[in-house]
Amino acid sequence: MSVTFAQGFSAAGVEAGISAVEGKKDLALVVNNGPLDAAAGVFTSNRFCAAPVQWTRKIVADGHVKAVILNSGGANACTGQPGYEQSKATAQKVAALVGAKDSDVAVCSTGLIGELLPLDHVLSGAGKAFAALADTAQAGADASHAIMTTDTKPKTVELEGSNGFRIGGMVKGSGMIAPQLATMLCVITTDAVVSAGQLQAALNTGVEMSFNRIDVDGCMSTNDTVLLLASGASGIEPDPDEFKDLVAQATASLARQIIGDGEGASHDIRVKVTGATTEDAALACGRAVAASNLLKCAISGNDPNWGRIVSSLGTVPPEVAPYDSNKVTVDVNGVRICENGGAGRDRSEVDMTPREVHIDIDLHAGNAEATVWTDDLTHEYVHINADYES
Amino acid sequence: MSVTFAQGFSAAGVEAGISAVEGKKDLALVVNNGPLDAAAGVFTSNRFCAAPVQWTRKIVADGHVKAVILNSGGANACTGQPGYEQSKATAQKVAALVGAKDSDVAVCSTGLIGELLPLDHVLSGAGKAFAALADTAQAGADASHAIMTTDTKPKTVELEGSNGFRIGGMVKGSGMIAPQLATMLCVITTDAVVSAGQLQAALNTGVEMSFNRIDVDGCMSTNDTVLLLASGASGIEPDPDEFKDLVAQATASLARQIIGDGEGASHDIRVKVTGATTEDAALACGRAVAASNLLKCAISGNDPNWGRIVSSLGTVPPEVAPYDSNKVTVDVNGVRICENGGAGRDRSEVDMTPREVHIDIDLHAGNAEATVWTDDLTHEYVHINADYES
Repeated sequence: MSVTFAQGFSAAGVEAGISAVEGKKDLALVVNNGPLDAAAGVFTSNRFCAAPVQWTRKIVADGHVKAVILNSGGANACTGQPGYEQSKATAQKVAALVGAKDSDVAVCSTGLIGELLPLDHVLSGAGKAFAALADTAQAGADASHAIMTTDTKPKTVELEGSNGFRIGGMVKGSGMIAPQLATMLCVITTDAVVSAGQLQAALNTGVEMSFNRIDVDGCMSTNDTVLLLASGASGIEPDPDEFKDLVAQATASLARQIIGDGEGASHDIRVKVTGATTEDAALACGRAVAASNLLKCAISGNDPNWGRIVSSLGTVPPEVAPYDSNKVTVDVNGVRICENGGAGRDRSEVDMTPREVHIDIDLHAGNAEATVWTDDLTHEYVHINADYES
Repeated sequence: MSVTFAQGFSAAGVEAGISAVEGKKDLALVVNNGPLDAAAGVFTSNRFCAAPVQWTRKIVADGHVKAVILNSGGANACTGQPGYEQSKATAQKVAALVGAKDSDVAVCSTGLIGELLPLDHVLSGAGKAFAALADTAQAGADASHAIMTTDTKPKTVELEGSNGFRIGGMVKGSGMIAPQLATMLCVITTDAVVSAGQLQAALNTGVEMSFNRIDVDGCMSTNDTVLLLASGASGIEPDPDEFKDLVAQATASLARQIIGDGEGASHDIRVKVTGATTEDAALACGRAVAASNLLKCAISGNDPNWGRIVSSLGTVPPEVAPYDSNKVTVDVNGVRICENGGAGRDRSEVDMTPREVHIDIDLHAGNAEATVWTDDLTHEYVHINADYES
């Protein structure tokens, strides 16, 4: 269903011959049929941001996007001016097809860094996608498949507001996932009647609490892009708070799906830090724990190794997160295996069979909290990332 | 040879029954026979620092250490007051044996976090080690074996100054290795006539340029301890600069050996960043690259993936390291595969067969540089760390 769940959007996913994988859909097109064309975006903070990010960041700035073209099979990153010209030419092609200004077409790419795209294939694929555009569930599903790389499954969301407005969305992302955006392309659509300013505010909040709180491997991508488009086709002006909340639900769902499909992952790990002096302190602690390769290996071996949890916690400077190490407690899947900074109940009591592992850390220093998600580190992760190129 | 290479030191390494590994030497003793007993130390900055670190940091502060007892098979970390009492009791036992004050005996432990040591075994082992003390090469070698955990080989250094004074040393460390000290215990000895102040200054410089610039897995330990002891037995007062330089050579050699024995590593990776505005900027860039799991996986697959190098580089904030991403060059093993922030020569030209991989990044922003070392991320690393507990 994905992006076509919201009224006023059509989509397509086609095989354009960009990806090296035989027969894989690798080009998606999403068109906003209006009446509105309000849009907002959030992008990677990586300084080597890709050409499509440079293009799209610029054209989204005015709050208008009519269409988004996305490809897997090549990131068009670190490709200099020629790469930028490719993104621009792609936008121009789509603009001509859908009858929009060049500057109302967003471009997203994902795949290998450092190589130009096969532009002919992208442009002919755009034509093919345009011909296939539909507002059906299948068309939305096709688009969500076309943006996948190492993802093993498409990731979509469909939500409905209390008075009937809708939000749909799709995301790709599996590896190179770290805070300050994951390696991901995400398009969220809504048929609500909302302004670009409302969209941006809702998107900023949603992204901060979702995509910016997941970490598969600590690696920030060059291509991360999250777009939120409004068609206004429902004619419904939502309650602003409800709208914001629903966007946050959508980004949270998509972020959770990324973790659930993390490269090679056998466990999804939720690190919740409570009892912090501030939310930033809780977040810094959660991120330090979620980034520990040693812990992530232990979890993949079904070992609730609290020593590796507290040793990660101990790397957060006191000025960032004040707490007394002798008061910290750690529960794994509900069993308090670390009490007052030392051994608690026996680790053998912890049931590590569920895919989801809950690590609950109480700093006993205040009332603020934060939650981050990560994956375990497995043989399969190494396999995927040692052999991705070859 | 290790710590007994310097005159005035005796050592031993014995099986005390602390380690779970049958027949493994797990207790080392190093005694400074004088005439001096000057000492300096550098310790982990982890807030969950282990009991032996708390003890040893305190007793080294006055610049005097007569003996060091080190055990593998248990870190005595996150063990609270009972753990501290164990470290103290161990020091008292050694003090009685060698005829020193309790406060002149340093204690180091490494192994699993969160469990108390089998104190009876430690104390009886101390007696056994005392009986075995010798100033021979074999005794030094035994000590360097006794501190190993997941290390596959002992790591030692022997250096001689221009006028004959000597420096010997041993270190253990293989996983949980990150800047701000690696998971390591290190004892360096010298027979030079130097003050505790000279020792501390030389050690600080040496550690900063060596142990603080290696990163196996981004994980900081609770137990890191580096001690530098001077016996003065050579009667030689070295040139201060030469002494400092030789200590730096010793720490550099030991740090390099840790990287050479990183858990599961198949490549040792040297990341050298030049053309930075400041050394701190170069170091931040080097550390960001050295910490990339994606890059480390690629290297284990013999893929000189420059996209993963620049995407890591791109995460360093501009205020930390100013540079223009369009000017950056990257050479891997001497082949410029990234030119002006984009593709350079073909990656197939890079010979990835050597164990040592050289990544040379030129930011073209200034004249400062820094070098950090890391290991690749392999199946074997995951295996070691997923199964370490079980």
